[in-house]
Amino acid sequence: MNVIPNWMRHYQKSWLSGDVVAGVIVTVMLIPQSLAYALLAGLPPEVGLYASILPIIAYAFLGSSMTLAVGPVAVASLMTASALQPLAATGSADYVALAMLLSLLSGGMLLVFGALRLGFLAHFLSHPVISGFISGSAILIAVGQLKHLLGVQAGGASVFNTLIQLVQGIPHTNGVTLGLGAGSVLFLVMARRYLAPLLVRAGVSTQLADIASKLAPMLAVIVSTVLVALWRWDETAGVSIVGVVPQGLPTLGLPDLSASAIGQLWLPALLISLVGFVESVSVAQSLALKRQQRISPNRELLGLGAANVASALSGGFPVTGGFARSVVNFAAGANTPLAGVISAVLMGAVIAAMTGLFHYLPHAVLAATIVVAVVSLIDVRTLREAWRYDKADALSLLATAAGVIVFGVEVGILTGVALSLGTLVWRSSHPHIAVVGRIPGTEHFRNVARHPVAVEPGLIAVRVDESLYFANADVLQDTVESLVAAQPEARAVLLVCSAVNQIDATALGVLTNLEHSLSQRGLVLLLAEVKGPVLDRLQSTVFGQRMQGRVFLSTHDAFVFAHRETTKRPPMVDGLPTSAL
Amino acid sequence: MNVIPNWMRHYQKSWLSGDVVAGVIVTVMLIPQSLAYALLAGLPPEVGLYASILPIIAYAFLGSSMTLAVGPVAVASLMTASALQPLAATGSADYVALAMLLSLLSGGMLLVFGALRLGFLAHFLSHPVISGFISGSAILIAVGQLKHLLGVQAGGASVFNTLIQLVQGIPHTNGVTLGLGAGSVLFLVMARRYLAPLLVRAGVSTQLADIASKLAPMLAVIVSTVLVALWRWDETAGVSIVGVVPQGLPTLGLPDLSASAIGQLWLPALLISLVGFVESVSVAQSLALKRQQRISPNRELLGLGAANVASALSGGFPVTGGFARSVVNFAAGANTPLAGVISAVLMGAVIAAMTGLFHYLPHAVLAATIVVAVVSLIDVRTLREAWRYDKADALSLLATAAGVIVFGVEVGILTGVALSLGTLVWRSSHPHIAVVGRIPGTEHFRNVARHPVAVEPGLIAVRVDESLYFANADVLQDTVESLVAAQPEARAVLLVCSAVNQIDATALGVLTNLEHSLSQRGLVLLLAEVKGPVLDRLQSTVFGQRMQGRVFLSTHDAFVFAHRETTKRPPMVDGLPTSAL
Repeated sequence: MNVIPNWMRHYQKSWLSGDVVAGVIVTVMLIPQSLAYALLAGLPPEVGLYASILPIIAYAFLGSSMTLAVGPVAVASLMTASALQPLAATGSADYVALAMLLSLLSGGMLLVFGALRLGFLAHFLSHPVISGFISGSAILIAVGQLKHLLGVQAGGASVFNTLIQLVQGIPHTNGVTLGLGAGSVLFLVMARRYLAPLLVRAGVSTQLADIASKLAPMLAVIVSTVLVALWRWDETAGVSIVGVVPQGLPTLGLPDLSASAIGQLWLPALLISLVGFVESVSVAQSLALKRQQRISPNRELLGLGAANVASALSGGFPVTGGFARSVVNFAAGANTPLAGVISAVLMGAVIAAMTGLFHYLPHAVLAATIVVAVVSLIDVRTLREAWRYDKADALSLLATAAGVIVFGVEVGILTGVALSLGTLVWRSSHPHIAVVGRIPGTEHFRNVARHPVAVEPGLIAVRVDESLYFANADVLQDTVESLVAAQPEARAVLLVCSAVNQIDATALGVLTNLEHSLSQRGLVLLLAEVKGPVLDRLQSTVFGQRMQGRVFLSTHDAFVFAHRETTKRPPMVDGLPTSAL
Repeated sequence: MNVIPNWMRHYQKSWLSGDVVAGVIVTVMLIPQSLAYALLAGLPPEVGLYASILPIIAYAFLGSSMTLAVGPVAVASLMTASALQPLAATGSADYVALAMLLSLLSGGMLLVFGALRLGFLAHFLSHPVISGFISGSAILIAVGQLKHLLGVQAGGASVFNTLIQLVQGIPHTNGVTLGLGAGSVLFLVMARRYLAPLLVRAGVSTQLADIASKLAPMLAVIVSTVLVALWRWDETAGVSIVGVVPQGLPTLGLPDLSASAIGQLWLPALLISLVGFVESVSVAQSLALKRQQRISPNRELLGLGAANVASALSGGFPVTGGFARSVVNFAAGANTPLAGVISAVLMGAVIAAMTGLFHYLPHAVLAATIVVAVVSLIDVRTLREAWRYDKADALSLLATAAGVIVFGVEVGILTGVALSLGTLVWRSSHPHIAVVGRIPGTEHFRNVARHPVAVEPGLIAVRVDESLYFANADVLQDTVESLVAAQPEARAVLLVCSAVNQIDATALGVLTNLEHSLSQRGLVLLLAEVKGPVLDRLQSTVFGQRMQGRVFLSTHDAFVFAHRETTKRPPMVDGLPTSAL
């Protein structure tokens, strides 16, 4: 791979204006989001800003998407909080150091996965599980932010504890905080719903109107900061504010690498990596397809890995590709990752010189932006569609969401993975196995249960519609044994392997046993339509050698052979001397 | 299900002699094994005897195998020790209570799995993983018994610690103990290797000779006990002996049910259940097939579950179907579980009146029987065959064995499960996808890379040789997008679904996106040879409705349609007025 990415080597002047505009617009979204997601992760605000500079630049060099906007995102921030809260006091120096370590581990894993081309790992997560995970996380995040909107202390070990404490805290609600928070929520919801149509009716283009409506959070931030600063609500009304944000670019350095911390953080890091990767790739892919560009999952692993390592080295926390910002980046005309680089430079300028502007920003308004952003992630449509189409998938979705809400993000996602795999194994452990017969007068063979076909009396012919491996090999054996028991006159069993793409070692063992036990009872096993690669591998085995002469190219050939073998008689002698035969 | 099992209701007098002989012979094997496996599990000897009475009777009522010999086995005993040693002092009353609880949990899980017909859960374990697990466990068990053979103290947190302590302990070796232990090992190995052939040469039938050689452990137990009792080596030479074994039948009672203990034991209980079930079913199945009998996996779950609950209620520990005893039971002529019931009654008589006989039995001889038994479980052949046939399976086997030896049984088996599933997902996430064309002059379509076929210029026709689901849906999309990018003149994409047995919700989402993104670029998606059940479910979806008129019964029909569509021209008008068309 060249050090200078393709887009940079072939940069065209005509791309510049789109990149600059998109970079500026994304920055306006990114400032409140990076502060808000740091709050959500339990980190000081500057950590959110740090995570929005170098990671973007690192991704620009290694990632494959032209328009993915990398940085802090809601779900990864929640996962960070959930991983770190048992280990250190929220917001403490230890907590920040652990966040950096978490980002380093996550980045390191992504780089290793990328180097090993393990992009397929993302396939362990099915769409319903991801949807359930995101919806559950969104609910968890929204509940967790209510305390900021009410201006009360709350936050138990579980979502139910938190809700009870919130209800108990209602009498202590801070009125001004609630006003700011609820007002912001109302404003942001209205902006989402009505601003864009309003602007369109006023003659603004749809795209521009959409983008403008996404900048509402910045407006809420500015207006509320000015209000608090004017009336000093932090002192006169006890409104919780961001306070002092250290000014100056992040210093580079390696986080502390303690073995015990690594032992506690590797699993959360792995889950953050996987979830972040899956989400990023799906956003990047859907945007790339609109412009007929291509995403390379393995390069995405490298890009996101480098972004997280860069975040760790510059005082940040786990980052990934964000959905909302990427869509805005795309719509605002970003042509290349230069848009991101421009964002990063602007963010650098903000943190180098302008952090004082955030001093009076109330936490309630950041919480409002979080709540409004995550509520839109709650995905009822996927649940409804899955329920109609595939109950097992719908139940996986619900179980994952419930797992996240009741037991937390880690248990939730592990439940989801287990359910995905359980469904997979369950399904493939119930393969479709059809007894087949000949369509009279042809060389075609079909399921006897569905078609009027002719069978060979001494032959049991079955077609297995699945590769044979550990999850279903026993089922094949059971099926064959049942058929043999039900048809005692059978002298041969034929497996039609047209849909068998693989036979693993477990299935090979089962086939070996099956052939052996059939032959002990005087039955002969035949194979037909074995695919080339499968046959090549079988031929080196004991089973393959025993089967020589009994593997047929077509089901027809096997039927002809079986007919001859099962109807063998002593040579006829009526009317002819035996020697004449 | 009837309370009286089938075999009992239809018992034939002619079965009795075989059952009695087998019951007696298995008892002679069972006595030393139950004492030895209790030692291995870290439990007092009487616990092993208790686990050999009621569990066998419970299995006789619910199990489906006629010849499976249920009771203490080596691997489950090791798993018990590994689960309990972190929680209580070996051999203490708490330890015994936890063993009963473990057995209760394991039995309860098996019963629940049986009631829910979850026999398929066993499919999560592939044969290579089980083989690696058993071999690794055998090595772990053998190393753990060396201290008894040497008569030294050893037993660290890991197998390496244990080995180091053993080496350090060599100077303190108890000579008499070593003599008894090594002598027994030598005798048992010789008996295994030479006794049966010797007896055969002396005119004994092969079957009888085999059985006689399996009774060698009892002979070693008797001779060594007599020697120790005669010379009082326990006092004169410090030989460790079994000592007082409480006399009398076990009392029935529920073990303590503490929530924290259940929290710590549920995972080991689950693993013991799964491993025990898989092993039992495979032994029972191979024996049943020899007599053309059938095993019901779901009834096996019930039988083994009841056996473990019975063990828990009568002071025992986890039990399952044992390989060696079952084979002897079968060979000795057992016809029904009555053989087991006879064993159980004999064991009851032993514990009610004869435990004094075990007083001088040296631990070294029990350890010798364990070592010789488990070394025969180390399975190099499966490794060699897997290595030749399927490297991924061989690596799963090695990783599982290494996991067991280095990190213990739980990590080992979980590693194995993860690797089985990882291999499964990895394989199915790389489905075989072929571009197909027409064999000229026919309606047959084959892979363009393998056959001389004719393609339709405007059409990309691909055949997917796998069901479509979360693990491979993205790969299909990637492949189609690459093909479209490489063939910009294409106007249609055809998916030949002859090998697609399922389409899950994730894959449905991907197909929906694919159709949408293709149509945005002016390409039309076609489907052919969609199987009936798959099509039925698709028709209720948005995707299915959009695809109406573009799903073809045969690939040929789809090619004809594509040819007409992609070569459409404005109506010809040469020579004819347009209105005449």
